[in-house]
Amino acid sequence: MIKLFHRVQKPPAQAPGTVSFVGEQKVEKVSIKLIDYDAEKLDERQIEDFHLCFPCRETETVSWINVNGLHDIELVRKIGEHFGLHPLVLEDIAHTQQRPKMEDYGDYLYIVLRVLSFGEGQRNLVSEQMSLVIGRNYVLTFQERPGDVLEPVRERLRRGKGRIRAAGPGYLGYAIMDAVVDHYFKIVEGYGEAIEALEEELLGDPQQEALARIHNLKREIVLLRRAIWPLREVIANVERDDVELIDDAVAPFLRDVRDHVIQVTDTIDSFRDILSGLQDLYMSTISNRMNDVMKVLTIFASIFVPLTFFAGIYGMNFEFMPELGWRWSYPIFWVVILALGGTMLAFFRRRKWL
Amino acid sequence: MIKLFHRVQKPPAQAPGTVSFVGEQKVEKVSIKLIDYDAEKLDERQIEDFHLCFPCRETETVSWINVNGLHDIELVRKIGEHFGLHPLVLEDIAHTQQRPKMEDYGDYLYIVLRVLSFGEGQRNLVSEQMSLVIGRNYVLTFQERPGDVLEPVRERLRRGKGRIRAAGPGYLGYAIMDAVVDHYFKIVEGYGEAIEALEEELLGDPQQEALARIHNLKREIVLLRRAIWPLREVIANVERDDVELIDDAVAPFLRDVRDHVIQVTDTIDSFRDILSGLQDLYMSTISNRMNDVMKVLTIFASIFVPLTFFAGIYGMNFEFMPELGWRWSYPIFWVVILALGGTMLAFFRRRKWL
Amino acid sequence: MIKLFHRVQKPPAQAPGTVSFVGEQKVEKVSIKLIDYDAEKLDERQIEDFHLCFPCRETETVSWINVNGLHDIELVRKIGEHFGLHPLVLEDIAHTQQRPKMEDYGDYLYIVLRVLSFGEGQRNLVSEQMSLVIGRNYVLTFQERPGDVLEPVRERLRRGKGRIRAAGPGYLGYAIMDAVVDHYFKIVEGYGEAIEALEEELLGDPQQEALARIHNLKREIVLLRRAIWPLREVIANVERDDVELIDDAVAPFLRDVRDHVIQVTDTIDSFRDILSGLQDLYMSTISNRMNDVMKVLTIFASIFVPLTFFAGIYGMNFEFMPELGWRWSYPIFWVVILALGGTMLAFFRRRKWL
Amino acid sequence: MIKLFHRVQKPPAQAPGTVSFVGEQKVEKVSIKLIDYDAEKLDERQIEDFHLCFPCRETETVSWINVNGLHDIELVRKIGEHFGLHPLVLEDIAHTQQRPKMEDYGDYLYIVLRVLSFGEGQRNLVSEQMSLVIGRNYVLTFQERPGDVLEPVRERLRRGKGRIRAAGPGYLGYAIMDAVVDHYFKIVEGYGEAIEALEEELLGDPQQEALARIHNLKREIVLLRRAIWPLREVIANVERDDVELIDDAVAPFLRDVRDHVIQVTDTIDSFRDILSGLQDLYMSTISNRMNDVMKVLTIFASIFVPLTFFAGIYGMNFEFMPELGWRWSYPIFWVVILALGGTMLAFFRRRKWL
Amino acid sequence: MIKLFHRVQKPPAQAPGTVSFVGEQKVEKVSIKLIDYDAEKLDERQIEDFHLCFPCRETETVSWINVNGLHDIELVRKIGEHFGLHPLVLEDIAHTQQRPKMEDYGDYLYIVLRVLSFGEGQRNLVSEQMSLVIGRNYVLTFQERPGDVLEPVRERLRRGKGRIRAAGPGYLGYAIMDAVVDHYFKIVEGYGEAIEALEEELLGDPQQEALARIHNLKREIVLLRRAIWPLREVIANVERDDVELIDDAVAPFLRDVRDHVIQVTDTIDSFRDILSGLQDLYMSTISNRMNDVMKVLTIFASIFVPLTFFAGIYGMNFEFMPELGWRWSYPIFWVVILALGGTMLAFFRRRKWL
Repeated sequence: MIKLFHRVQKPPAQAPGTVSFVGEQKVEKVSIKLIDYDAEKLDERQIEDFHLCFPCRETETVSWINVNGLHDIELVRKIGEHFGLHPLVLEDIAHTQQRPKMEDYGDYLYIVLRVLSFGEGQRNLVSEQMSLVIGRNYVLTFQERPGDVLEPVRERLRRGKGRIRAAGPGYLGYAIMDAVVDHYFKIVEGYGEAIEALEEELLGDPQQEALARIHNLKREIVLLRRAIWPLREVIANVERDDVELIDDAVAPFLRDVRDHVIQVTDTIDSFRDILSGLQDLYMSTISNRMNDVMKVLTIFASIFVPLTFFAGIYGMNFEFMPELGWRWSYPIFWVVILALGGTMLAFFRRRKWL
Repeated sequence: MIKLFHRVQKPPAQAPGTVSFVGEQKVEKVSIKLIDYDAEKLDERQIEDFHLCFPCRETETVSWINVNGLHDIELVRKIGEHFGLHPLVLEDIAHTQQRPKMEDYGDYLYIVLRVLSFGEGQRNLVSEQMSLVIGRNYVLTFQERPGDVLEPVRERLRRGKGRIRAAGPGYLGYAIMDAVVDHYFKIVEGYGEAIEALEEELLGDPQQEALARIHNLKREIVLLRRAIWPLREVIANVERDDVELIDDAVAPFLRDVRDHVIQVTDTIDSFRDILSGLQDLYMSTISNRMNDVMKVLTIFASIFVPLTFFAGIYGMNFEFMPELGWRWSYPIFWVVILALGGTMLAFFRRRKWL
Repeated sequence: MIKLFHRVQKPPAQAPGTVSFVGEQKVEKVSIKLIDYDAEKLDERQIEDFHLCFPCRETETVSWINVNGLHDIELVRKIGEHFGLHPLVLEDIAHTQQRPKMEDYGDYLYIVLRVLSFGEGQRNLVSEQMSLVIGRNYVLTFQERPGDVLEPVRERLRRGKGRIRAAGPGYLGYAIMDAVVDHYFKIVEGYGEAIEALEEELLGDPQQEALARIHNLKREIVLLRRAIWPLREVIANVERDDVELIDDAVAPFLRDVRDHVIQVTDTIDSFRDILSGLQDLYMSTISNRMNDVMKVLTIFASIFVPLTFFAGIYGMNFEFMPELGWRWSYPIFWVVILALGGTMLAFFRRRKWL
Repeated sequence: MIKLFHRVQKPPAQAPGTVSFVGEQKVEKVSIKLIDYDAEKLDERQIEDFHLCFPCRETETVSWINVNGLHDIELVRKIGEHFGLHPLVLEDIAHTQQRPKMEDYGDYLYIVLRVLSFGEGQRNLVSEQMSLVIGRNYVLTFQERPGDVLEPVRERLRRGKGRIRAAGPGYLGYAIMDAVVDHYFKIVEGYGEAIEALEEELLGDPQQEALARIHNLKREIVLLRRAIWPLREVIANVERDDVELIDDAVAPFLRDVRDHVIQVTDTIDSFRDILSGLQDLYMSTISNRMNDVMKVLTIFASIFVPLTFFAGIYGMNFEFMPELGWRWSYPIFWVVILALGGTMLAFFRRRKWL
Repeated sequence: MIKLFHRVQKPPAQAPGTVSFVGEQKVEKVSIKLIDYDAEKLDERQIEDFHLCFPCRETETVSWINVNGLHDIELVRKIGEHFGLHPLVLEDIAHTQQRPKMEDYGDYLYIVLRVLSFGEGQRNLVSEQMSLVIGRNYVLTFQERPGDVLEPVRERLRRGKGRIRAAGPGYLGYAIMDAVVDHYFKIVEGYGEAIEALEEELLGDPQQEALARIHNLKREIVLLRRAIWPLREVIANVERDDVELIDDAVAPFLRDVRDHVIQVTDTIDSFRDILSGLQDLYMSTISNRMNDVMKVLTIFASIFVPLTFFAGIYGMNFEFMPELGWRWSYPIFWVVILALGGTMLAFFRRRKWL
């Protein structure tokens, strides 16, 4: 089950802005990838020594530095200091439970995104933090572990076609956000299928464990919503605040991302409504079944209990029971008994219990 | 059952603004209809070669180009380029799961509408995308397949009466929106009737399958709402933003469309309230029925179980049971038994179980 | 049962602004009443020929033309044209399912109100449309059928006292709105009484049909809310927009109407809360009852089933059952049986089932 | 039970602004108390003839005229006219079912408050209207009957200490509002205790009448909320609108009252949440109980019904039943019977039903 | 159980702004701690005589005076008067049931925070008030009893590193708020764990007392929310209002605190959703169990009641029952009985009751 809550608290007596990693270590070694490009050329390198990425702050080309793994706090701090990031930004990069947000520090824009994926065995939602810093001629991305979410962006850069190579870091920032949001659709699609499968089961013959599945889906949708919803506002802010670092030509593209986020959140909200409908459906189905069980019991008991009584009557040992000696008592008894049973059956059939 | 979710994601590693059709192919061949008109004359043609519609961008007359079928992406792209549409607009036209929206690109206005209809057998809600581009002297409409929603607009154009021929593309755009929204009333009416039928059944003698019908209606209302609700804001934006392409004389007509949309969404919201009331009603009805079943069981068991016990007593084989030898034991037994049964019946009648 | 939905759609292929009556014809003949007044004199006439009301557009006096019955569309159209009403206003007058709204056309103000009443037999809510047009020196009202809602306004005009005769059409417009809103209190009072009656029944001994009554009340409250709620905004708009046609002296009176509308909607919202509480109450009551039924069954079965077993034991025909031959077996059997029954009763009494 | 709805409608055909008392007459005779004070002296009188309070409009001192009892409409009207109140204000004073509101008439401020108390026997919530008029050098208060809510304010005036004697009518108005709001805490405390008592009962051994108590509390909380909630906005308006009659030094005190009102409404909202939780708790408790009842029944029936069957077998009268003649049949029968019963008990114990 | 409501009312007839302690006395003796610091030096003292803290209002250094224990009202009043606090501020400090708020008095900023902790035995939520006054060169904090919430702040001051010593009282105020908010995470984590434990139990084999635990958690979450939610707005106000006392360099830090508060409230809201899901889960589990109980009963009764009837038949004493004398009657009887029982079992297995 997904944890409901992850601690973001810094250790006590530590000043805010102190960079200490809070989270689970997810990769063994921090890896840094540098992509340096302009419209003509592109240079892609895996960097061993992080100092090697420092010069690119001065060059004219756009540099995208992607850091995978955040537990080497010293490295994050050094890169942050070189690029002049505020201590609180570094703290937020390292505390990987932030909600999506955007902060404009003038020289650079700091954006927190949540990258969602299904964990191993495709069973649980995994929510990881991606920090995105957009500067004048560079873009920094910090991820908890290498994922395939950004690969399409790199692919487009490599192919060197389209607007992405000619446009500046603002457009690259947009492309990264777009890739993250596009990935949400996969997640949402997964939940859509799970809900539809559950729906079909509930309308057929639901098992008891369906209850746990409804609950789990409801719970994950709550957490999914918490991870995505704030992004609506984030992108609206980037659009509205007339952020200097993002030029006007990028605006329609951001609007497009925002439309996608709204579509995702709309869908999540529908899921919520439908899941709460499924809970009702399950309850009603249980009640219907109990009704069926009760009807079987009632039919059996109501037919045989009276008949047993009559059999009991003629099992009595009174000396003076004239019927006992009559010739046709026993056949008549059977006729009466069958008539009574038939009447009861007819009664239940009229009540539509049969 | 309607799909909860349709993928809008573009294939990975594809730049935004790339036009690729995402959806189900619904017609065999793309068909294009061109209506070219001004106050005096009207020319209506089915076009085979899409290049034939290019000249109308230059003419003084208002040209309405309606494209049915979106799978021939190249065609859509060529038309879009000729009319100078933004790549993102072309992407949105081809990805047919957009939510309603309006975007003002200065030269033209891009509006996404959802056309609703009941599918085959009148059973499920079908939601298709209509893209509407309003330019200075042309209107483009892109539909997934030919429908009868726009026929009334064409009819009015042909008859050449009224404001529609004299007014510009803004008014034609309004007329198309109005036709789409008018169609919603039919859908809403259909749901209203379905809900009323269900209501009557539930207040009478509901069957078990009513449960699935309540659930299906709730679910469709959720999706219906998602398709129509955003339109409120869209039309309010067209009105408020003082869009240059739509002249002031059209404003009261747009207000009228907005009123209709609000009326539709209000009605949908009432449906939602009433459907959740129906769920409660169903649950209470089941409980009431179970009560009835239980009462029958209890009455039978409570009367005959004690009587059987008494019969059992006199079926015992003790040697010394003085009653067994008495002359009037058997008749007295019957009297006692009947009195007991009568008392029980009276007891249940006083409790109003009978 | 009230219809959930009434069609407002115009026939297909008809231009917007086409006046065609959509609704049920509720009176045989359209009747027109003209009241022409200023501070000194008042002239009240029933008009046969609608042309007779045309001159009053020119006179200095305030003219109130009330049209009862809307099926004679031609008449409505002619009056509308004479007073220069926009085609969409005429369309809205004739399509009697509008929600309350206010539109300022500069020369005149168009207001849609809904007049509520209990239908025949005082059973169902009837919601009719009243269209109100306030011009410089005239007021037009269009109703579906003559009602007694406006009679108090006429009475005050006739008596010639108070502000109403001296003030202009703005004040008359206010007086009409006030009369309509005052009438809502009667409706709300009716529902309040129905809810209180239901409440008392539910806290006492609810019958099964109470369920249908709860549902019907919930449903009517939903529709009532839909009819009244938008009026809040309408009156706030009249107040705020500084409508030229309504002079400042009328403002505190409009504020008073708005307060009344808010009071009505507040009350309706409380009704909603209380009704959903009543549904819960009913469900709990059913469950309590089922508990009672089950207890009766359990007590009977738990006492007599074991006793019957013991009687069955001594009804067995084994040859070697020493108890059968003992002298005191039978009396001892009774003692044991009664002791067992008494123990069970004590057990149930301790569990508070008795 | 509290009435859900009180009519505020004026008699038909009566102009707005007509003063007629609508409500229950709660005192026999109207009583008027005049307190005339400045920083140095204070004069407190019970006035018989209402004309005696007229001169104080001219004096320099602050005059507080408190009218208890509103059925003598003529008196209210005369006082109102002398102090130049708008007819609608007089109407609102006499119609005692207004919701809290504030209206600035320039010369004076009209505020409607609701005074809450528990009625006789401390059982039901009583909501009465207090009208407060704050003028340049006077304050008028109109109450339905004398209460002890304002006594603390008078006491502070008499003692002549503190800011109250030196400050103007604005501060007195604040002090009155503060006294009314302080009184709400008592009411809320009462409900808090009632809810906690109910909670403890429900977590223990709830009786059937707890259901009615939950319903009554829910209902009263709905009405309580309706009476207090609008006051939030009222006081925010007084603060924000920069009302000329209330000088700036009073602002922090008004803010303090607003904080109290928010605290009260917050608490009421928590009550609502907790009460709806109690309803759920009650339902679950009933279901748990029914489960217990069912288990008892099932245990008894499942053990004794099979045993009775076996006893029945050997009560049969077939001639050829070898077991009947065996020596150890009867003891073996008992052993089998007890073993069977023991197995059943073990089964139920493993299922944790025992 | 936590009290739902704590009285804040001042004794009647007491002027607002009168300082009287309302709450429970939580420490024996008021203790005052003074920390006087600038970038170079830090002086920390426990003060016996409160007059000793008066001089620090004049010094250049930043002085932080922390008062633990509020029952010595005179002391609070004297300190307040020395630092020029408004009487209403003193009243609010002493009435320890305020909701979080911020008031700007120009010379100083008054902030109310709620410090949350789990009480003894870690069982119940304890909510205490911390009053924070930020002046030009001093910070006052008033707590109900000494807690460890502020210790980290003191520790950072003592260590003399970081921004805290160099920055002014605004930054110290931020650091205190940050410490209080950081503490919320611990609380929220505690509830997260409690909810997850409950969840696991409910998905396994819930006991009846789980119901009380769900209720208690729901209730505490309601109160938790009430304590934290208003803080969102408080910090937004401090940020937005451009409070003079807090310089711009502190703004990003305040934004950081606000982000934390939003994160906490978001999490609390998820808890609410999940808890209401748990209630549903519990109800469904009870219903499922009842179904199981009913099935056991029905299976036993439906098999053995008919068999008992047949045994009863052949226990009858009619003289003419040919079967009784047949040789193979008894074995045949057993075969029939077992076949019947087997059929019933097969029936129940097909219905999946077994």
